[in-house]
Amino acid sequence: MATSDVFVILDDRGGRHLVGSEAGVAEIPHLGVVEVARLRESVGRKVSIGSRSLLVLPASRRDRMEALARGPQTIGPKDAASLIFAADVSPDNVVVEAGAGSGWLTVALASAVGARGRVIAYERREDFATLARENVRRAGMAERVEVRIADIAAGIKERDLDAVVLDVPEPWTVVPAAWDALRVGGAFASFSPNVEQVRHTAEAIAARPFVDVRTVEVIERELEVRGTGTRPSQAPIGHTGYLTTGRKVLDKFM
Amino acid sequence: MATSDVFVILDDRGGRHLVGSEAGVAEIPHLGVVEVARLRESVGRKVSIGSRSLLVLPASRRDRMEALARGPQTIGPKDAASLIFAADVSPDNVVVEAGAGSGWLTVALASAVGARGRVIAYERREDFATLARENVRRAGMAERVEVRIADIAAGIKERDLDAVVLDVPEPWTVVPAAWDALRVGGAFASFSPNVEQVRHTAEAIAARPFVDVRTVEVIERELEVRGTGTRPSQAPIGHTGYLTTGRKVLDKFM
Amino acid sequence: MATSDVFVILDDRGGRHLVGSEAGVAEIPHLGVVEVARLRESVGRKVSIGSRSLLVLPASRRDRMEALARGPQTIGPKDAASLIFAADVSPDNVVVEAGAGSGWLTVALASAVGARGRVIAYERREDFATLARENVRRAGMAERVEVRIADIAAGIKERDLDAVVLDVPEPWTVVPAAWDALRVGGAFASFSPNVEQVRHTAEAIAARPFVDVRTVEVIERELEVRGTGTRPSQAPIGHTGYLTTGRKVLDKFM
Amino acid sequence: MATSDVFVILDDRGGRHLVGSEAGVAEIPHLGVVEVARLRESVGRKVSIGSRSLLVLPASRRDRMEALARGPQTIGPKDAASLIFAADVSPDNVVVEAGAGSGWLTVALASAVGARGRVIAYERREDFATLARENVRRAGMAERVEVRIADIAAGIKERDLDAVVLDVPEPWTVVPAAWDALRVGGAFASFSPNVEQVRHTAEAIAARPFVDVRTVEVIERELEVRGTGTRPSQAPIGHTGYLTTGRKVLDKFM
Repeated sequence: MATSDVFVILDDRGGRHLVGSEAGVAEIPHLGVVEVARLRESVGRKVSIGSRSLLVLPASRRDRMEALARGPQTIGPKDAASLIFAADVSPDNVVVEAGAGSGWLTVALASAVGARGRVIAYERREDFATLARENVRRAGMAERVEVRIADIAAGIKERDLDAVVLDVPEPWTVVPAAWDALRVGGAFASFSPNVEQVRHTAEAIAARPFVDVRTVEVIERELEVRGTGTRPSQAPIGHTGYLTTGRKVLDKFM
Repeated sequence: MATSDVFVILDDRGGRHLVGSEAGVAEIPHLGVVEVARLRESVGRKVSIGSRSLLVLPASRRDRMEALARGPQTIGPKDAASLIFAADVSPDNVVVEAGAGSGWLTVALASAVGARGRVIAYERREDFATLARENVRRAGMAERVEVRIADIAAGIKERDLDAVVLDVPEPWTVVPAAWDALRVGGAFASFSPNVEQVRHTAEAIAARPFVDVRTVEVIERELEVRGTGTRPSQAPIGHTGYLTTGRKVLDKFM
Repeated sequence: MATSDVFVILDDRGGRHLVGSEAGVAEIPHLGVVEVARLRESVGRKVSIGSRSLLVLPASRRDRMEALARGPQTIGPKDAASLIFAADVSPDNVVVEAGAGSGWLTVALASAVGARGRVIAYERREDFATLARENVRRAGMAERVEVRIADIAAGIKERDLDAVVLDVPEPWTVVPAAWDALRVGGAFASFSPNVEQVRHTAEAIAARPFVDVRTVEVIERELEVRGTGTRPSQAPIGHTGYLTTGRKVLDKFM
Repeated sequence: MATSDVFVILDDRGGRHLVGSEAGVAEIPHLGVVEVARLRESVGRKVSIGSRSLLVLPASRRDRMEALARGPQTIGPKDAASLIFAADVSPDNVVVEAGAGSGWLTVALASAVGARGRVIAYERREDFATLARENVRRAGMAERVEVRIADIAAGIKERDLDAVVLDVPEPWTVVPAAWDALRVGGAFASFSPNVEQVRHTAEAIAARPFVDVRTVEVIERELEVRGTGTRPSQAPIGHTGYLTTGRKVLDKFM
């Protein structure tokens, strides 16, 4: 299934529903079953069904991610954006990720590497792996993603990776395996909520040859533009986590 | 010139120097001329030259961008990351950008669309266009980028674009042309420092069919992990700008 | 009633209850009526009543404020702290405030001016004025506060004020009256959620002699220290408002 | 010397100069010596001297603080505002502070307790103590402040204090002495740049009876309102520190 074969249906109550090309019908909550073929004839147009209305679009990266059940992963769009950029995840790249969790970040990485790239997602728990696989399939990314049931701390089989991306409780235990698996110049990237996790990870990185080591927190504030005035959103912008990145080299430098 | 043919030389004073494949020699400030062939034999390794040392790596997206003179553009890595994600700039996409400025954001977009994607960068000023072209060439992205001397407010020739990305003083004047040029579901993205610019742009967007309209400010804080303790950086994190995005549809919806 | 005569009862479910000196009993939700005299013999000690426990303390500024119904006012502790400091509200000062709303900010100002200072709170709506008076009384601040039913935009009777503090929808209309009412060097301070309100207020200030004019937004992030790790709170830190301050002078300067 | 006897001279280059009542003349950099009596006749008015101009005002809290050499202390106005509020420093209070450093925070505390309050500032180093005393005197606060050369970790002589305020490298060592010295309901407040310091302090607090324990970071962003547009300041807003507060009780509670 090619990327372009996945669509999103927006409903008039703010709902968002992914639909694969193979789907004959889709079920919209509080509305019922709709014929997908009919909707796909009207991409971008408002379709009225009784007193309700729908609008169909080719699915964006964000649609594919937000339509998924989030499950065990905490990383959000702002952090995924920053991670992909900082770890230089690019078209045609091969990337290892752990843990897959719900597959949420997996889908973001798969979008960035494109149809000729590859994401191998390690996940220890079989139930999460099953969820991740299903979500990756729904997002139309199954051909470029492998979800593997394995503990990444026990070793990474792949070599010459462009990036190793971690969202695990003890990322410092994975640093040696990540260094071994990366190509020269390849990126290590780890996401953690707690300062202590960052500290341990930074110490593990310092024990091996890496350059461009850096930890950031990304904060996103929405600006609300309304008739009554413009102001930053009063909605939550709580902490999600810290992103630590570095690039593998062969000798300690600076 | 393929992407992988560009290298970066890190020097031991924190300098960073892009080197293309065609280069026989590179000049490192305060050190002198070095033979590129010799460095490229030692990718990832520390190379000592007299009392100084260098380290060569395949250039990352960030290397390509940071090695460029910034010139007239204000957008930085945190905003580029957020923009690429929010506008869903993906492998194989065709994207129009304006103004090109120094070509800094152009290079980021070109990295995200990959070797089979395409970026057309509009730039009114001939001197900036010349700078942008030279920077795009140095970054190894010339084959996937066209820098065009033209005022985007006067119209966009392309049709069916995946994204239109703006870093111009009056983005609201470009909204009609952007809507015409985008494919259904394609993204409008505009970056502006001032609240009044955001307000005008939001009003122009509201006058046409767009969905998922949103303005955010992205703030990045570095966390410094040191022997003496861990804390957010005391270095500047001033405002850079607001990012407004939306997706073209054919009918007004919600 | 002196300030020290107000107590706060903490209950073991996180509740907080103000008790005045005249009170013979206090009613604690889900517990019932307790004798105040008995509690006041045990200030600072845990008092067990059946299976529940209470602890009594002299009421702090924050207790007095948080125990009040918030009602129509949006300003919170972080903004009150910043406002009092920026407007240099000091012991023995005489301050005018509008609108009183629930009296929440009134209590904060009354704490800062002390028993020999004075706060005059203008409030247009009789229902809010009644609420504010009752809250000020409960907070033990009645002797130093006057809540006056009047529209501050129609004029301020007082002269030689140390500060004029505004939390009203159109603060710019009050700038002329505030200038007239302030002593030389006295502070104008206005709190508003929207950028447009700030802009209009700044323009009104610029039309009169003021120095040290400044607008800030204050953001407070809690750092959570727990057994499992330390991190900024994941709880909301949405926008509340902007604080604009300036000091009256007699000639335009700089 | 009463508080009101200190004046501030603003010069037309943005300089700010404190002048005590006893001063016959003041020296303004790049201008020369001016007669104070003449300036004090024109409070709030622009005074022209040759091609330069000056303006005299009664000194505010912030004038008193900003005119001082900052020296060894890192705490700034936003943190001082938050600390005074969170620690409920009020008129007539008696407060112990350590270390005095340059006396910068001492002056802020002295402003909040007023003429009938009292601040005792512990400072180990004689040179800092001398600087602090001189600054406190210049700020017109000498009568309500005592700067004592002593190591606060060795014990606090005072009892029944309203607050103990710390800006020292190892605040956790002072927690036991602070608990002993505070009145019931009195506030412990400590300011530290590093997360590890916060953690140790929180652990020391947890070992004694305190309630309302909390750590916050305060961030202040200036909003710039200009003819060309309105936006948050591009100037630095780096981290300064974390503020940990708690209130003494006699029994562990919750």
